[in-house]
Amino acid sequence: MLFMVRMDVNVPPDFDSDTFEKLKQTEKARAEDLQRSGKWQHLWRIAGQYANISIFDVSDAAELHDILINLPLFPFMSTEVTALCRHPSAIIDD
Amino acid sequence: MLFMVRMDVNVPPDFDSDTFEKLKQTEKARAEDLQRSGKWQHLWRIAGQYANISIFDVSDAAELHDILINLPLFPFMSTEVTALCRHPSAIIDD
Amino acid sequence: MLFMVRMDVNVPPDFDSDTFEKLKQTEKARAEDLQRSGKWQHLWRIAGQYANISIFDVSDAAELHDILINLPLFPFMSTEVTALCRHPSAIIDD
Amino acid sequence: MLFMVRMDVNVPPDFDSDTFEKLKQTEKARAEDLQRSGKWQHLWRIAGQYANISIFDVSDAAELHDILINLPLFPFMSTEVTALCRHPSAIIDD
Amino acid sequence: MLFMVRMDVNVPPDFDSDTFEKLKQTEKARAEDLQRSGKWQHLWRIAGQYANISIFDVSDAAELHDILINLPLFPFMSTEVTALCRHPSAIIDD
Amino acid sequence: MLFMVRMDVNVPPDFDSDTFEKLKQTEKARAEDLQRSGKWQHLWRIAGQYANISIFDVSDAAELHDILINLPLFPFMSTEVTALCRHPSAIIDD
Amino acid sequence: MLFMVRMDVNVPPDFDSDTFEKLKQTEKARAEDLQRSGKWQHLWRIAGQYANISIFDVSDAAELHDILINLPLFPFMSTEVTALCRHPSAIIDD
Amino acid sequence: MLFMVRMDVNVPPDFDSDTFEKLKQTEKARAEDLQRSGKWQHLWRIAGQYANISIFDVSDAAELHDILINLPLFPFMSTEVTALCRHPSAIIDD
Amino acid sequence: MLFMVRMDVNVPPDFDSDTFEKLKQTEKARAEDLQRSGKWQHLWRIAGQYANISIFDVSDAAELHDILINLPLFPFMSTEVTALCRHPSAIIDD
Amino acid sequence: MLFMVRMDVNVPPDFDSDTFEKLKQTEKARAEDLQRSGKWQHLWRIAGQYANISIFDVSDAAELHDILINLPLFPFMSTEVTALCRHPSAIIDD
Repeated sequence: MLFMVRMDVNVPPDFDSDTFEKLKQTEKARAEDLQRSGKWQHLWRIAGQYANISIFDVSDAAELHDILINLPLFPFMSTEVTALCRHPSAIIDD
Repeated sequence: MLFMVRMDVNVPPDFDSDTFEKLKQTEKARAEDLQRSGKWQHLWRIAGQYANISIFDVSDAAELHDILINLPLFPFMSTEVTALCRHPSAIIDD
Repeated sequence: MLFMVRMDVNVPPDFDSDTFEKLKQTEKARAEDLQRSGKWQHLWRIAGQYANISIFDVSDAAELHDILINLPLFPFMSTEVTALCRHPSAIIDD
Repeated sequence: MLFMVRMDVNVPPDFDSDTFEKLKQTEKARAEDLQRSGKWQHLWRIAGQYANISIFDVSDAAELHDILINLPLFPFMSTEVTALCRHPSAIIDD
Repeated sequence: MLFMVRMDVNVPPDFDSDTFEKLKQTEKARAEDLQRSGKWQHLWRIAGQYANISIFDVSDAAELHDILINLPLFPFMSTEVTALCRHPSAIIDD
Repeated sequence: MLFMVRMDVNVPPDFDSDTFEKLKQTEKARAEDLQRSGKWQHLWRIAGQYANISIFDVSDAAELHDILINLPLFPFMSTEVTALCRHPSAIIDD
Repeated sequence: MLFMVRMDVNVPPDFDSDTFEKLKQTEKARAEDLQRSGKWQHLWRIAGQYANISIFDVSDAAELHDILINLPLFPFMSTEVTALCRHPSAIIDD
Repeated sequence: MLFMVRMDVNVPPDFDSDTFEKLKQTEKARAEDLQRSGKWQHLWRIAGQYANISIFDVSDAAELHDILINLPLFPFMSTEVTALCRHPSAIIDD
Repeated sequence: MLFMVRMDVNVPPDFDSDTFEKLKQTEKARAEDLQRSGKWQHLWRIAGQYANISIFDVSDAAELHDILINLPLFPFMSTEVTALCRHPSAIIDD
Repeated sequence: MLFMVRMDVNVPPDFDSDTFEKLKQTEKARAEDLQRSGKWQHLWRIAGQYANISIFDVSDAAELHDILINLPLFPFMSTEVTALCRHPSAIIDD
């Protein structure tokens, strides 16, 4: 099943930058793993914002939730989740 | 360049259904052509709504605009456009 | 998979009331069928509004979409869809 | 009487994690008790967010309020309360 | 049980004024009856708007819903419902 | 003159709880005095939220303002003020 | 007592323009009378919109309501009402 | 003085298209005149929407208002007006 | 040129109250000077909120900006600016 | 390609003012460089707010993103990005 997720990252200006940098590195590694596994299908930066648009292909909402809450930056994120399905005019079934 | 576009279609309940059905058929043909051309990369239905999430790969904003305003259902749509770029953690450059 | 759907019904004040009454009867029959099938698990009226909160148990978002767009009152509705999953503190798995 | 409550939990990123973990454990115990009592009828996680959708069956709004403000995580929550009643097309009276 | 309801009345400018005037008269009679019965406890006009703030004292949400959807002007209204309960600092229990 | 005021109280999770408890006690005493004086006519808790709906009967907006800004919890509140007047269908003039 | 009122006028594009022109003339005459009476103290156009910002000096909210609902263009307006009072730093008491 | 104006054009789907086409032609001529006069400094299309972002250089708000309400499409527009001034880091004074 | 400005003041509950009191005194002196100069024409308190509605008469947007950013409380404010002009039905040109 | 960006700067009232002043100086230098390079075409202050409206002329969304996230004040900003294209009634192609 496909879900579109928009993630906005908000870091308080006085948050310790070393700690955050480490979290970002772990996040990057996790995101790459999940992409290689095929679950995180697309990951795009929203131009001009600390935010992304992602497409997940997971077995159900529980798997999506499990992935998202375990992201190292989840405590700094607000998320918006949209369930997708095939469009009748789509020529491929992605 | 990649753009995400959300399109919501609103049809007044008393709009002539035959006219609308014909517009939908033309829209479908146009959408399929644009997908085959590679410009309309993804087209997903938002579950439970007369709305879609689309990813366009166009040369610039002018080409995107030209595509959208010429869609037969454009007069019934409200649209939301988001410029995307590569994410530093993306493993493929799509 | 569980989805919560909020449906708000908006009827233009000058819409033909006989036509609408017939649509409502068909809608009622369809809703009862879907409840009996187990797919439409809960259907509650929001007090004071022409709106409901529903819980659907479907195989995926595509099945949910198919159910909703075929409701006779769908053209009069605005919908809000929320994907649900099990809560770690829930004592039953519904 | 039935109420739907949406609870969103917001924890400042620099809040002491041990203290919060203890609050979460107490919250979990309380939630399980209230579910066993029949007052907290359903408790679902909203996929991808630190938030839940709950259905309460209480004698009145005062009882609902009393339950919610005594939840250990209430100081971290924003809540949305919707009064529900039986839908004319519902086949069971839950 | 107490509910606060805000009702906003929206009449399309071209709606037949005689028909609307008759609806308003029936609405007034109904509102007065419900106030005499004690169920519609307070009815205030919001200054400068075709809208009111009302306090209802009903046995439950179902009774509130039944009252509201049977108001002659309900098809022209948008409503907002808020469940109230006693405040710990209130000196009377109204 | 009547005003409806909605007050939402927001306390930062790390605010000193003793200090806040004292403010709450003073607030309670002040609210009871104002109710006894007839100026604070109604005070209801909004179910499930740290918020209230109040009706004030004051000589003018200046008196209302003076009352509100002197509430001990005012620095923690966001307020919404609505001027009310008699409704043509109201059977009592409260 | 002072109230600020923002009035936005919305005319459906297909509304009969002669009828509307007459309403506008009556509105203008009424507005001028009310200004001469001292009740409508200020009347400013919001640049670029069919909207105004007005300051009314009336005995109470009932008088304000009576003035506004009797404006010929009231059925085409949405209004926003804000109760004002003297500011401690104001050097004149207007 | 500089103002940024965002104009969104909304045409009811059943509005007579010939009439609208003529209005658009007159609008285009007017817009070109105003640009040549130097008052309408910039006019950009918002990609994917029937909307524009414009920069006006006028003597004051009254002149801006006069220009906007006389646009042939003004009755179909919603507008948003933002007063601009020189930025301390701007290297040119435009 | 006339501008309406709404200023909302937000002070974190734990901000040092002496420092803030001093800023308020300087603000008051500044506001009184600007009123005497004729640039700050009206200054009204919004009833029940730490907010004001002000009317400024300045030569242009740059002068308005210069006044506002130099207010001692500006770092605590959110502002909303509306450009005004003469209304065709206004009987005085203020 | 042209983008309009609105940047709102939010500084916590207790942020160290020396540190911020230095960031502002670096920001100013960077903004001036980018203007000289032709990429940051326009930079206007929004009157009365710590915010600006900017027009960027960049090769694509990636270049825009790269510019924005490297602004020294980016961690304090919220941004809004709008893709622009030529308007059919524009007399120059800027």
